[in-house]
Formats: sequence, C-alpha cells, structure tokens
Amino acid sequence: MNPASLHPKKLFAAVLACGLLASVPAQAQFAKPQDAVKYRQSAFIVMAASFGRIGAMVQGKAPFDAKAALQNAEVVAFMSHLPWQAFGPGTDLPDSHAKPEIWKEMDKFKADANKLQEMTPKLVAAAKTGKLDEIKVVFGETAKTCKACHDAFREEL
Amino acid sequence: MNPASLHPKKLFAAVLACGLLASVPAQAQFAKPQDAVKYRQSAFIVMAASFGRIGAMVQGKAPFDAKAALQNAEVVAFMSHLPWQAFGPGTDLPDSHAKPEIWKEMDKFKADANKLQEMTPKLVAAAKTGKLDEIKVVFGETAKTCKACHDAFREEL
Repeated sequence: MNPASLHPKKLFAAVLACGLLASVPAQAQFAKPQDAVKYRQSAFIVMAASFGRIGAMVQGKAPFDAKAALQNAEVVAFMSHLPWQAFGPGTDLPDSHAKPEIWKEMDKFKADANKLQEMTPKLVAAAKTGKLDEIKVVFGETAKTCKACHDAFREEL
Repeated sequence: MNPASLHPKKLFAAVLACGLLASVPAQAQFAKPQDAVKYRQSAFIVMAASFGRIGAMVQGKAPFDAKAALQNAEVVAFMSHLPWQAFGPGTDLPDSHAKPEIWKEMDKFKADANKLQEMTPKLVAAAKTGKLDEIKVVFGETAKTCKACHDAFREEL
C-alpha cells in the first residue's frame, strides 16, 4: 500500500464512489432518521434471508445442507447485533413497520433484542452438530423470539 | 428448549412472523429476482454504513474511536462476503444500479468482489492496531476497491 494513495482528492473520490458521504454524518451514526430506517430494515432483510434458508430446510422445503445451514446461522448470529442501534430517538418515522411502542417501551424492546441475541449463538452451535433435528429445535425457539418482538413492536403495513 | 414448541402450526406462525415465507423459496436462494436485488442492496447499505463511519474518522469529520473503528471494520469484513450471491442469472433488473456489464463480465465482477474481500481483513487488522494512521492507509486502499468496481459495474440512477 502506498500512502501517496491518500491524497485527499483521491480519497474523497473513492469515498464518494462508495456512496458514503450522503449517509455518513460527522458526529452521529446516521445523518437522517430515514438513513436509520433504511439501515435497520436492510439489516433485518439480510438476517431474515439467512434465517429463512434454514427455515426452508427445517420445514423440508429445501434439502438439508449442513454447510449452508451453518453459514446461514452465522449470518443470523452476526446480523442479530446490528439493527438495534438504528432505533435511536427521532427515528420513529411513520410507514416504517416500527410501532411507536418501541420508543415508549424501549427497555422491553431491548430485552426482546437480547433474547434474539442469546438464541442466535445456540443456532450456530446447533448447526455445528450437523443434525437437522437439533437445528429444528433451536430454529423454532429462535423464530419465537422474532414473533414475540414482532407482535409487540412491528406494524403490518 | 421444548420440542413441543415445534408443533408445525406454531412453527409456521413463528416463521410467518419473521416475514420469511414470501421471500424464501424451497429450492432457490431467492424466490424472485426482486428479492435478490433487495438483498444485495441491503447488504451494501449495511456495509457502507460501517465503512462510512470509519471514513468519517479517517477524514477527521468524527472523533477517532478505536473501539468503534474496529467494530465497524468487522462489520465491513463480514458484509463483504454477502452481496455477491444475489447477482445470479436473471437478477439483472432495470433501475437497480446494477449495470448489465456485471453479467457480461462476471469473471471481472467476481475478481473485483475478491479484491474487496482481500482488503477487508486488512482493515480489521489495521483497526486492531488502534492507530488512526494505519487505518487511514488501509481505508484508502479499500475505498479504491469500491470505486473500481462501482466505476465498472454500478449505474448512477
């Protein structure tokens, strides 16, 4: 690596290319409430896609692939830490699926998030056994944490 | 955990609550090309948010926070593996920022993705030093891999 590559103009061009300047504030995690909404929805989409792939195996709708199950469990576990930072004050925008209860009952919301985060390493551990029956049990328990939180805090639009 | 929780109806309800059934096919990774587009855009949004937070530190727009830099570098490194699976055949939808060149030059596209994936562990390693100057160098090199790929394969809409 060549420090000359760090010429401010070049760096600026590269950063601009990454589409970052619009969405990255100097002092806050998200420049605009809309950016926070987009972020948390994106994190949920990525998490749900992987969780759903495991679900398809668990439900017999896709062939069991132990390696893919583990990879997807690892994605679920990683992603389970990301969305919550984007529910800060002022991000209770309408039409975002987020019920106002999130901000009124933030302690319960965080507790629900913690329940998911406590389950996802167990999902990884179950996937590591390579046994679909074990994955099925933990998948069901993990899905219940989704449902409990959605029932309380997610609005169907 | 209680295997009784796996009653198919309950499991179905929980899985439905996670919003998965619509987006998870039995045999394919994505039920619809639109789902693939949404997935890859979501993965890029999450990656860019973390990369941008490091960028704000590197550019002096946010105070340097070594712990946050490392956490964000780890997110970038993890996310750098995810979007590419969603550029499969038939996912070349219009108005998605994806140039048709992706599918015409898939080998080059994959090579560009690999370059990013080779850089992101270096970004983590740099962040682990806790030295902003080291992060700055690797950040610049990583940003260049964004830019090179975007120049070739990303359409501004």
